[in-house]
Amino acid sequence: MDYSDPRLKGFKKFEYIDDALKKFFNSLDLNPVDCEVVNVSNALGRVLGEDVISNVNVPPFSRAAMDGYAVISEDTIGASFDNPIRLKIVGESAPGKPYRGQITKGEAVRISTGAKMPEGSNAVVMVEYTKQIDDYVEIYAPVGENQNVSKVGEDIKKGEIILKKGTVLEPFDLSLLYSIGITKIAVRRKVRVAVGAVGSELVDANKFNNVSDNQKYIIETNRIMISSALSYFNCEIVDLGIISDDEEDIKDAIIKGLNEADIVVLTGGSSVGKYDYIPNIINELGEPGVIVHGVTAHPGRPVALASINGKPIINLPGYPVAAYVDFLLFVPPIIFRLLGISGEYIPLKVKAVLDSKVPSKPGTRSFVRVKLVRKGGEYHAIPIRLTGAGVLSSLSKADGFLIIPEDLEGLDKGSEVEVLLIRRFIS
Amino acid sequence: MDYSDPRLKGFKKFEYIDDALKKFFNSLDLNPVDCEVVNVSNALGRVLGEDVISNVNVPPFSRAAMDGYAVISEDTIGASFDNPIRLKIVGESAPGKPYRGQITKGEAVRISTGAKMPEGSNAVVMVEYTKQIDDYVEIYAPVGENQNVSKVGEDIKKGEIILKKGTVLEPFDLSLLYSIGITKIAVRRKVRVAVGAVGSELVDANKFNNVSDNQKYIIETNRIMISSALSYFNCEIVDLGIISDDEEDIKDAIIKGLNEADIVVLTGGSSVGKYDYIPNIINELGEPGVIVHGVTAHPGRPVALASINGKPIINLPGYPVAAYVDFLLFVPPIIFRLLGISGEYIPLKVKAVLDSKVPSKPGTRSFVRVKLVRKGGEYHAIPIRLTGAGVLSSLSKADGFLIIPEDLEGLDKGSEVEVLLIRRFIS
Repeated sequence: MDYSDPRLKGFKKFEYIDDALKKFFNSLDLNPVDCEVVNVSNALGRVLGEDVISNVNVPPFSRAAMDGYAVISEDTIGASFDNPIRLKIVGESAPGKPYRGQITKGEAVRISTGAKMPEGSNAVVMVEYTKQIDDYVEIYAPVGENQNVSKVGEDIKKGEIILKKGTVLEPFDLSLLYSIGITKIAVRRKVRVAVGAVGSELVDANKFNNVSDNQKYIIETNRIMISSALSYFNCEIVDLGIISDDEEDIKDAIIKGLNEADIVVLTGGSSVGKYDYIPNIINELGEPGVIVHGVTAHPGRPVALASINGKPIINLPGYPVAAYVDFLLFVPPIIFRLLGISGEYIPLKVKAVLDSKVPSKPGTRSFVRVKLVRKGGEYHAIPIRLTGAGVLSSLSKADGFLIIPEDLEGLDKGSEVEVLLIRRFIS
Repeated sequence: MDYSDPRLKGFKKFEYIDDALKKFFNSLDLNPVDCEVVNVSNALGRVLGEDVISNVNVPPFSRAAMDGYAVISEDTIGASFDNPIRLKIVGESAPGKPYRGQITKGEAVRISTGAKMPEGSNAVVMVEYTKQIDDYVEIYAPVGENQNVSKVGEDIKKGEIILKKGTVLEPFDLSLLYSIGITKIAVRRKVRVAVGAVGSELVDANKFNNVSDNQKYIIETNRIMISSALSYFNCEIVDLGIISDDEEDIKDAIIKGLNEADIVVLTGGSSVGKYDYIPNIINELGEPGVIVHGVTAHPGRPVALASINGKPIINLPGYPVAAYVDFLLFVPPIIFRLLGISGEYIPLKVKAVLDSKVPSKPGTRSFVRVKLVRKGGEYHAIPIRLTGAGVLSSLSKADGFLIIPEDLEGLDKGSEVEVLLIRRFIS
């Protein structure tokens, strides 16, 4: 990129986004946080801290996979509608009410799905291929050994690892844990993130009502955005509040954040203007300090990635759109490391046709807010605004970001593009 | 499809999945639930019950979009590095500390991003194109009118609809509400879903420890799966517990569910076996009763969609994989209607190459559990198991469902497929 651009003065060097993350992760040892034991009923979205091994077979006994009759498969050889085979009904096996006896040649037990297979039986004839006549059942089709039977251990074998360390628990994982009798589980504790907004001009939305006549204050809007986005990742928030431009206040806030949280996220003060000096303050507070200052994201250039004593400090730009872009780029990957998540995060994306030409600077990864509109079978991506990192409404008007990579100089109208969704619903 | 298959006996008619939903929605008036007022700080993921109109302009005054000097643009005509133009610095405007005076020809005010533009000024020269010399500033580049200025109302105009009824609130929407001074908002109350599992053989995982010797009971695993999946949609759960096969118990549970919730979801007893008679019980309880019984999903055929007095009752199969498939197909669309969500839900999908041939029945939509493995730049989808709706571990081993539509007879190895993810992380 063009380092002669005067706007780049003050930044040591711009990092490509992927390099920035690598450099940052190489600069510190980010180990997963401790584990805690929680009830499986509260474990949705939590991350397994250890492999889960089954102590039991599932099913614990062989059981019917269909409603019908438990039989000895050899007894049914040659059975057909023209040549039914007649077996004596000696009892019934229902879920929770197993047949206690033993089946011998020429006998059948009426059985329901999920019920224990009687001793001696080895297959189930589906009820649809049978007809009961008094104490007998006519069989109209043969069954092979184990046909329509769920065998002991078929689902889970005793000693098997059923869920691996690092798994993010989904609804059916909780069911699986229950099914082998596990009701408590060791998961990573929640990651604590300290969130503060720097700026003497900022006021708290909940303490300020006089919006229209306001000539002096700006309502602070970044903390709620970052904090609620963090709730998607199951984090706990340490609210650092609004922090004045005063150097001592900023230092105090960072120190509080480092003491009480695993990550410190500050918005504002990351650029190189007169009132923007957080990266310098971080460097004064400890080692190694700022690792990356400035990346090739647009918007989102003036982000700083830093750490002190192994704890990440992320200084997002004050402009909300830039803050959101940098948040999405840099904060979740840190959280995933701290949670010890194994696996690749899959963001929500859709394919679309670009509705108009969009310019971008080579060497910069552009995040263009787009609205998606369905036309026939495909989505069309309509760029909302190409500049204005401070224009918050441009995010709310958008469905997602069209990401233009560093090696392209814009995209033409009609291009097939992929849009990173920032909403779950497209209207 | 082949209606002569004896396994289809007892079902009146199988509905194609999309037809089933249409038929169900046509059979009842599903109006959005009432609204409630909540704090914006707690409104993430909630659905707006009314349009939000701004009472203010944002920004409320014109402000600097860059650090630099507020000037009168005409004063900078012809400025260059070779021919700098010199203006008198008459003061400073910082965010929260506006310059109180008026700018006249030949004057400049030092200004920071976000600060109020002084009266009389109409542009900002970026600091990078200036040099301060005592009380004067040298300007090295001309600026046009409004250059580097965020004009009053540029982001949001007074009277503008900024968020529409039916919007699911994302983090930046909450920021936007704050930015116009809104801290409380009318959203749809949470949808209440009554969840119960039917089966006399079932025991509660939290009240039962003797798993390995268990010959009689089956640990109930569907409620936790359905309830936690519902938490993704912000629902409140009314736990109907485990319900015996006794007809009166089932009736009591349904009545309790209808009284206390907006939707009743029961698992088990939806098929046509001896112990499966919930659809009949629903029909006895009220009108119109069962609308759809049996759909062309595999697994997931024996689902029943019913309603009594305008409240949906969904009877999912007892088999957990089938229950999860039918849940995903039928329950979220009902919730979205009850929440009055405008817009199309975008599920998480990835493209993959199918690793082996998969058969499927024409006329049936198959949901094949697949594991995804990254090979080079693409994902390969490895089918885990083609049958076994009761095999819970097959869900936990999977990353998603490969969906084979009704008009195909299986898919060949190497096919390009789309996989509906059931996990956010692929390992």
